[in-house]
Amino acid sequence: MRLFKELLSVDEAKKIFLSKIKPFGETDKDVEKIRISEALFRVAASDVASSVDIPHYDRAAMDGFAVVSEATKGASPSNPVLMKLGTHVDEETCVWVHTGDAMPEGGDAVVKAEDAEVVGEYVEVFRPVRKYENVGRRGEDVKRGDVLIRKGDIMKPAHVAILRSAGIEEVEVFRKPCIFVLPTGDELLPPGEELKPGKVYESNGIMVSSYVTQWGGIAELHPLVGDDADEIAEVIEEAGGDLIITTGGTSVGKRDYMLDVLSKHELLFRGIALRPGKPTLAGIVNEKPVLSLPGFPTACIAVMHILLKPAMEKMLSTKFGVSLKVRLLENVTSKIGFTSFVRVKIDFEAMTALPIATSGSGILSSVTAADGYILIPENVEGFERGERVTAHLF
Amino acid sequence: MRLFKELLSVDEAKKIFLSKIKPFGETDKDVEKIRISEALFRVAASDVASSVDIPHYDRAAMDGFAVVSEATKGASPSNPVLMKLGTHVDEETCVWVHTGDAMPEGGDAVVKAEDAEVVGEYVEVFRPVRKYENVGRRGEDVKRGDVLIRKGDIMKPAHVAILRSAGIEEVEVFRKPCIFVLPTGDELLPPGEELKPGKVYESNGIMVSSYVTQWGGIAELHPLVGDDADEIAEVIEEAGGDLIITTGGTSVGKRDYMLDVLSKHELLFRGIALRPGKPTLAGIVNEKPVLSLPGFPTACIAVMHILLKPAMEKMLSTKFGVSLKVRLLENVTSKIGFTSFVRVKIDFEAMTALPIATSGSGILSSVTAADGYILIPENVEGFERGERVTAHLF
Repeated sequence: MRLFKELLSVDEAKKIFLSKIKPFGETDKDVEKIRISEALFRVAASDVASSVDIPHYDRAAMDGFAVVSEATKGASPSNPVLMKLGTHVDEETCVWVHTGDAMPEGGDAVVKAEDAEVVGEYVEVFRPVRKYENVGRRGEDVKRGDVLIRKGDIMKPAHVAILRSAGIEEVEVFRKPCIFVLPTGDELLPPGEELKPGKVYESNGIMVSSYVTQWGGIAELHPLVGDDADEIAEVIEEAGGDLIITTGGTSVGKRDYMLDVLSKHELLFRGIALRPGKPTLAGIVNEKPVLSLPGFPTACIAVMHILLKPAMEKMLSTKFGVSLKVRLLENVTSKIGFTSFVRVKIDFEAMTALPIATSGSGILSSVTAADGYILIPENVEGFERGERVTAHLF
Repeated sequence: MRLFKELLSVDEAKKIFLSKIKPFGETDKDVEKIRISEALFRVAASDVASSVDIPHYDRAAMDGFAVVSEATKGASPSNPVLMKLGTHVDEETCVWVHTGDAMPEGGDAVVKAEDAEVVGEYVEVFRPVRKYENVGRRGEDVKRGDVLIRKGDIMKPAHVAILRSAGIEEVEVFRKPCIFVLPTGDELLPPGEELKPGKVYESNGIMVSSYVTQWGGIAELHPLVGDDADEIAEVIEEAGGDLIITTGGTSVGKRDYMLDVLSKHELLFRGIALRPGKPTLAGIVNEKPVLSLPGFPTACIAVMHILLKPAMEKMLSTKFGVSLKVRLLENVTSKIGFTSFVRVKIDFEAMTALPIATSGSGILSSVTAADGYILIPENVEGFERGERVTAHLF
């Protein structure tokens, strides 16, 4: 019987696994040039600078009267400054402008419509304006050459809009990483079959695939394969994609077939000091990184967050999700030598986290009930109530 | 000239606008029954309870030997308990089980593989186990009748997986709200045309549409229309969708054509005490809520977050995005009587927020640089450095 004698620390496992992940480069292979209308939530593959000032002219920031600011000095409701309403701006003449209009030559401020009144061919100005008051200056929003989008930025609505403002209609984004997902296990049933004792529905495949989608990738989900090392090896050897994830078959015991499969190629590590998630293996098959996750759902989730997510982030030169600091509402304990993955419910008003108590690594409901997780490092026995810890949102 | 004489408070505007929004109901019109593989990030339309226990049998949580726990009392490496390795469990006999196997009748605990050794037909047990140790109990994860998904839940990977575990392959989700988006303004250029003084590229349409996508909807983006009240009225009167958003034409002045358009039907309000975002109108056209946003991009963003997002949340009975508490790194001031929308950069390690200083409401780059925003209520002059405020992430 083969045991997990030497468990690799989580940090070490991460270092080894990530060393096998290549960041996508600025090559045709890894980059797609797409229309900005398709770019929402995609990851920028290169910096994009503006070739124009935005706005590209001084403009009225209010509906009102373009004036020489000096000429409005001392204006008040009881003692308004009287100006001609004309078609050019000088010390005695103002011009009606709409919000967004180019400022007429000579005008350096706008008197808001509500601070003036038109009287025949004249305008009574009730309030003085400072130089550039109610004027949007050329390049105020973006100066020519300013970087609008940086490599690795996840394109949000304002990113898309700022590209359009700059007249940029196409943008280079990284292609979506393709992750091949292979669920394994004799104890598993594909959906639709009748439930029998000793059998459960296979749910890791769809879960891993969903996380891959969440982290900007495309999952290629292979149908469930039983405890058959040869069949699994064959599927993995022929798999496409940038990275292969398997689930199940990683524990010690007679069904630890993933060890056989990976050992035939290149085994990177076997067993990591993570709870849940210890029975995790990684290897290289045909130059492709393979990460073999334990079959228990929350163990599977833990390893996905600790190894798969950073791998996808490295490919895309980006970061997904939000991490924040919270105070613990309860003590949490951990076994020295193991990093613990603890699901927490967060009170975003109080900024506190309540650890979700679970008795096993199969407790999927502890994840649907959780907002995120905290990690207890391997050299720490736990955290105390009131301690400030980093929570990572799901 | 028509001024914004009486500005509606943000709370009042929200109350009036949301009173016109109907939550989607559990009717055929508003609900789609879809496969769970298509359900990621969709919003559940009804509670879903499990019709089975998960697991539906007591199961081994480890590879090892199923035993009667009592029989392992006092076991130690120097004084192991000797048991027969058999095919049934009793006081003297244990059975090899794989992780996930149904527990053999009579067995109430599993001795981990590494805590025992097979010697011929016998097993030496080196460690005692408690009742149910290393056993996953029937219904441990989910009990029959437990609610797996609640109406309004946004389906995350673990939600999809837990439905599959329970043998549920289809789920009712709300259809995506359809938002009709109409950008207007003579000063605007459609993409592709040459930039001229006084003209800027129209970018609000794609921005509003992108936020609609982010908040679970489908945007129907109409091409840009100029400052033509009749044409705008016609487009709005014939528009499809659940809600209509227009941008531009909301300010006071000669081009406040949205007021004319909405006044012909039912005007809900005109002008709200929000900075930026004052020139905001709402109305009802052919029983459809219409929200007319100011043309300046950040004003547009502010009103979208304050009125459109809650409207879409009400339709879908859900909440989008994360709000959290942060400490301000700088004083922020606000005009009494106005709610201020302040973009902030957040340090998630220190949980502090730095207000992003901007001189105008056109500053789209202040949004791409920001992580979120804070609101300064209308009855407050500002917040002081060090104050704890709620930040809403973009």
